[in-house]
Amino acid sequence: MKRFLLYGMALVIMAVGALGGAGQEPLWKKVREYRRAHEAEILREFRELLSVPNVASDGENIRANAELLRRMMEKRGLEARVMETAGNPVVFAQKIVPGAGRTLLFYAHYDGQPVEPGKWTGTAPFEPALRPGKLRAGTREPGPIPFPAAGARHEDDWRLYARSASDDKAPIICFLAALDALRESGFVPRNNIKIILDGEEEAGSTNLFPFLEKNKDLLGSDVLFMCDGPAYYSGDPTLFFGARGITTLEVTVYGPDTSLHSGHYGNWAPNPAVMLAHLLASMRDANGRVKVAGFYDTVVPLGESELRAVRSIPSHEEEIKRTYGFRRHEDAWPSLMEAIQYPAININGLESGAVGSRATTSIPASAAARLDIRLVKGNDPRDMAAKVVSHIRAQGYHVVEGEPDDAARARFPMIARVTGGRGGYAASRTAMDLPVCRAAVAALSRHGSRPPVLLPTLGGSLPIVHFQELLETPIVGVSVVNHDNNQHQHDENVRLGHLWLGIETLAALLMMD
Amino acid sequence: MKRFLLYGMALVIMAVGALGGAGQEPLWKKVREYRRAHEAEILREFRELLSVPNVASDGENIRANAELLRRMMEKRGLEARVMETAGNPVVFAQKIVPGAGRTLLFYAHYDGQPVEPGKWTGTAPFEPALRPGKLRAGTREPGPIPFPAAGARHEDDWRLYARSASDDKAPIICFLAALDALRESGFVPRNNIKIILDGEEEAGSTNLFPFLEKNKDLLGSDVLFMCDGPAYYSGDPTLFFGARGITTLEVTVYGPDTSLHSGHYGNWAPNPAVMLAHLLASMRDANGRVKVAGFYDTVVPLGESELRAVRSIPSHEEEIKRTYGFRRHEDAWPSLMEAIQYPAININGLESGAVGSRATTSIPASAAARLDIRLVKGNDPRDMAAKVVSHIRAQGYHVVEGEPDDAARARFPMIARVTGGRGGYAASRTAMDLPVCRAAVAALSRHGSRPPVLLPTLGGSLPIVHFQELLETPIVGVSVVNHDNNQHQHDENVRLGHLWLGIETLAALLMMD
Repeated sequence: MKRFLLYGMALVIMAVGALGGAGQEPLWKKVREYRRAHEAEILREFRELLSVPNVASDGENIRANAELLRRMMEKRGLEARVMETAGNPVVFAQKIVPGAGRTLLFYAHYDGQPVEPGKWTGTAPFEPALRPGKLRAGTREPGPIPFPAAGARHEDDWRLYARSASDDKAPIICFLAALDALRESGFVPRNNIKIILDGEEEAGSTNLFPFLEKNKDLLGSDVLFMCDGPAYYSGDPTLFFGARGITTLEVTVYGPDTSLHSGHYGNWAPNPAVMLAHLLASMRDANGRVKVAGFYDTVVPLGESELRAVRSIPSHEEEIKRTYGFRRHEDAWPSLMEAIQYPAININGLESGAVGSRATTSIPASAAARLDIRLVKGNDPRDMAAKVVSHIRAQGYHVVEGEPDDAARARFPMIARVTGGRGGYAASRTAMDLPVCRAAVAALSRHGSRPPVLLPTLGGSLPIVHFQELLETPIVGVSVVNHDNNQHQHDENVRLGHLWLGIETLAALLMMD
Repeated sequence: MKRFLLYGMALVIMAVGALGGAGQEPLWKKVREYRRAHEAEILREFRELLSVPNVASDGENIRANAELLRRMMEKRGLEARVMETAGNPVVFAQKIVPGAGRTLLFYAHYDGQPVEPGKWTGTAPFEPALRPGKLRAGTREPGPIPFPAAGARHEDDWRLYARSASDDKAPIICFLAALDALRESGFVPRNNIKIILDGEEEAGSTNLFPFLEKNKDLLGSDVLFMCDGPAYYSGDPTLFFGARGITTLEVTVYGPDTSLHSGHYGNWAPNPAVMLAHLLASMRDANGRVKVAGFYDTVVPLGESELRAVRSIPSHEEEIKRTYGFRRHEDAWPSLMEAIQYPAININGLESGAVGSRATTSIPASAAARLDIRLVKGNDPRDMAAKVVSHIRAQGYHVVEGEPDDAARARFPMIARVTGGRGGYAASRTAMDLPVCRAAVAALSRHGSRPPVLLPTLGGSLPIVHFQELLETPIVGVSVVNHDNNQHQHDENVRLGHLWLGIETLAALLMMD
């Protein structure tokens, strides 16, 4: 009898769900119901989008992406267009509602980081593959599985592998699916909706900003939701109110003008790999503390309340270390969340001579390192790069911009070529207590299934500062993808559970008061 | 009238030259005369030999080299055979003379260093190209020229570009041409002549040594002339009486088990490129002084007379620095010639993440360095490698031999994988005042056009110590090629002037008393 009672209650709950409609039960339930019925359809559209290569330098395919996205927006009844910049095109779409409350502007980028197909595990970057879990390090397991037929369910822990599966085509798909879910469920946003899709974010967005300036009126809004970056480790819907800035440098130091036999010339001719090791070791200790003079001078410290917010974010450090297989972390700051409130120097790559089977017993002719400098509020990108260059000079190097010629080689005992350091952008932080920020948080709390995580700043870099200067609108970041998505790397992926929750998050924001 | 007189004198000189024959004028003049008449022919044979790829791992082509060399030896009337080892075959050839004075054994190797064809300038490593001078750094000039027809002269400064043009097929060609020149000029060596050609010197000669042990009687000799390495910078015929030993290590340090976004995880997750920079900087200062504990403890110091010999070698340091475009040299020791009397650590290569257009803003998963350790008399290769490994441990690393597994990653704060350090060989030095050494020097002085340079030890490594232990014969090195030959690198070459003089040097040694 008890069993019948439970069964009957389930029927009642289902009936309420079916009858619900707009306004009658939490929005997330209706969105989830829609999604569950359309998973294969959502993934089919996602696969179509991911199959178009999107490296910013690949002009032809970039345009194919833009045209495809325009059609996808139009299909949802948005007025959509591909708009030209001096570089890659921008996709803009909007839906203007008579008597709208606010105007919401969404941003995402449709270009992706360069790919090295040879490094991908078993699949190609632009041939999306579904795997029943995360690739285990050093293996090809779990192997790809067929995409289920329409109507079939997908497990939350399944992952879709492709370049930009997370960064940054996932939020575009969430946005489209959220519009579909709202329409199907009878929810009608009372806000004007605009979306702008950048085609060269991974190449620095340099051509986007003149475009924003020129189209300021078209893009006018009460808030810009910048949809990029991973959700917090807890997997909860995540809003962020700032992001670090960035600039990059490539440093090459020189030895002999051709590589030399290390027996005949070793420990006498200058070894650029040794020189580079000493130079890099002088820049930064092994704990992440930068030793470049003045590097921390322009940092605007977090206020009391921001610091409190940072320190109240639950730690997932042990989980991260387990996930990525390391025990020791750099400990110049008390926590990861606090560390990303400071500028950093990261070495992205080293290259000199050869290792492994290609190695020869010789002194290389040169040695190169690529660095990125992550910036926080107060840091000027050029000033920070200039400080690093000054540090290189202080170690005795003559700094050049091109390959050193014979005259320079004859004249200067130590030569470093430094390129980069002119692009990049500063960090930004939006005040969390602006009314529109509070409204966004409220929408997630009311319409979502899980309370959001709020991050004062994100470790990753986004050119928010330019948007803020050009559009003069408050900017709030929205992050939906899993943190272990391999973005910027081979084997980039998105976890389906995060993608599904992302649809609910976008739907909630579209419906904000 | 004066003109006729000069002309008449020239005729007389020519007549004397033609009449000269064996024993009647310095041997070098007859050898040179022969060479001048046969330059195209010598180069044709050299090109044929260089056209057969000779990387030690390329078994099929290695065998083709051996068969070709056997035929070339047979053509000179030597009894020649291709003899098997557990690895690449050895070519052995001999000419036994009734009532011979001494038995001379020559050694050279026919394999070459691995090649990276993409790095070669305008030509392929196994398609020999003649250039009217040395390639100017960063250019394709001077471009290749056609090989002159038979009888035509070649300028001394012309260079032949190909893998092993210098290292180490040049002395083989000099040996063959010297035999031809002696025969044509009527000189008959009164020594037994033996030659052994190694097929895996660049891969460590590991299979040659059991072969030597097994064939000790066949290889019996009064002196072994080890023909390898570059002549001294002055370009004079060069004998050396020792060489440094070597062992190599590859060190990989680990960060996260996949590369990570440097914004979200930078200055918190361990950066292996930073770790490697600190590790390498801890091993060795920028002046070549090694900081590994005990690194210099087992060095057998040079005696007074050897030190005097080293210090009497004329310095070519300024010329070398001009030639290779650097101003500062490492100055832990007073001179290059003195520096090579000490063990050294050289970094041959660095690899981590990516630089240049492939770079991404991420923390690499690992960073690797390849090191060679050059050894001098007294150093044991394994002991020296072990000292470096101890140093790595002393920096806090857990040292493993394979890729670290999850358990190791979870347990150890810092992990370094070290491979190599088990092969390699010790250094050796032969006493310069042995009678056979004095006889070799005397032959060069009497039969050669220029007095020889005598080096107590060579900076480059040769497995002389194994030959000495196995064959129990004094060993003297013979170096003929130009020092700026790019050996072990792309664009390896030999200067024709050096090749020609090498023929005279080998002919003089063949005729020694």
